[in-house]
Amino acid sequence: MEFDLRTPRHDAMVDITAEVSRFVAVSSIRNGLVVVFCPHTTAAITINENADPDVVHDMLAQFNQMVPWRQPFFDHGEGNSAAHVKSSMIGAGEVIPLVDGKMALGTWQGIYFCEFDGPRSRRVRVTILPEGA
Amino acid sequence: MEFDLRTPRHDAMVDITAEVSRFVAVSSIRNGLVVVFCPHTTAAITINENADPDVVHDMLAQFNQMVPWRQPFFDHGEGNSAAHVKSSMIGAGEVIPLVDGKMALGTWQGIYFCEFDGPRSRRVRVTILPEGA
Amino acid sequence: MEFDLRTPRHDAMVDITAEVSRFVAVSSIRNGLVVVFCPHTTAAITINENADPDVVHDMLAQFNQMVPWRQPFFDHGEGNSAAHVKSSMIGAGEVIPLVDGKMALGTWQGIYFCEFDGPRSRRVRVTILPEGA
Repeated sequence: MEFDLRTPRHDAMVDITAEVSRFVAVSSIRNGLVVVFCPHTTAAITINENADPDVVHDMLAQFNQMVPWRQPFFDHGEGNSAAHVKSSMIGAGEVIPLVDGKMALGTWQGIYFCEFDGPRSRRVRVTILPEGA
Repeated sequence: MEFDLRTPRHDAMVDITAEVSRFVAVSSIRNGLVVVFCPHTTAAITINENADPDVVHDMLAQFNQMVPWRQPFFDHGEGNSAAHVKSSMIGAGEVIPLVDGKMALGTWQGIYFCEFDGPRSRRVRVTILPEGA
Repeated sequence: MEFDLRTPRHDAMVDITAEVSRFVAVSSIRNGLVVVFCPHTTAAITINENADPDVVHDMLAQFNQMVPWRQPFFDHGEGNSAAHVKSSMIGAGEVIPLVDGKMALGTWQGIYFCEFDGPRSRRVRVTILPEGA
């Protein structure tokens, strides 16, 4: 199962919790695992606070301080090596426990698509696996 | 399956390998995957060396150098944006192969609950999934 | 299922997509999840671009700037704390959706074994789990 999204800016964290929840709601699996996967190398998936938007602002600013867009030692011709670094630092996917038909996210947790070289059209894949006995 | 822990300091890596192993021991699944998930946005789960405690000291010190607690560009009113950044850098969960009833961790690997804004009461969820044929 | 590799240098990203694909090809599971796990504490698994080798160069250089090999606050006697930090930053494993018998990697995605304290002999474990109905 896949869905598409359009990221709004060069750097962005887009809350995709509702989209993922829609796939979970139509699955017959009630307990197991939900895997959210990003098939792009300049983007990532993470889980973090979905209450105060300042958290997302601060996270993107901190990532940019740690991984500057320009570095004297970057050779890659496309000029987006910083986005590749952030993609591997944050990671291409997240696994979320599925309990009684709902993702067992914490109170403040949301699932984010992290864009590091946008704006672009992007894709997200959701896989649901059943728990054992 | 869940368990609670109390983290001891503001920054800490608490070895939870024994707690996770207890859930694995009572499961009827012998081969598959063990997923350890942290439902908090200022903490994380990682796998790293469990032999020399200096490794944990050095890791926490390096995280603090990369992500300072105070930054002029942090807006979040709670003042713990650094903890949110570290949570996404390290990640909310780990997946560990389950082989013949035991987690297939390497010789020096232990599972750690990473606290970045403690001390606090925290929760960890363990999910076990069966391997296919 | 496991395979061994020899890493070529102190810092390296070795493309292991072909090795993992070989395990996928002989599995009877057509849809589900492929988990690639690194049982070492100074190495990691990541997914990133497999087209331009400059990307790997730039990523390793950026990791080394963020996490210097020597730090005045490193206590660990082995002297490889930087490798432990990078291992937890990048992560011990990756989960990849399996769709119709093939890993659903994006066009530019490859699976990399990241060596941060080599050259060494290393091991990788591949676990394949079936999707639910």
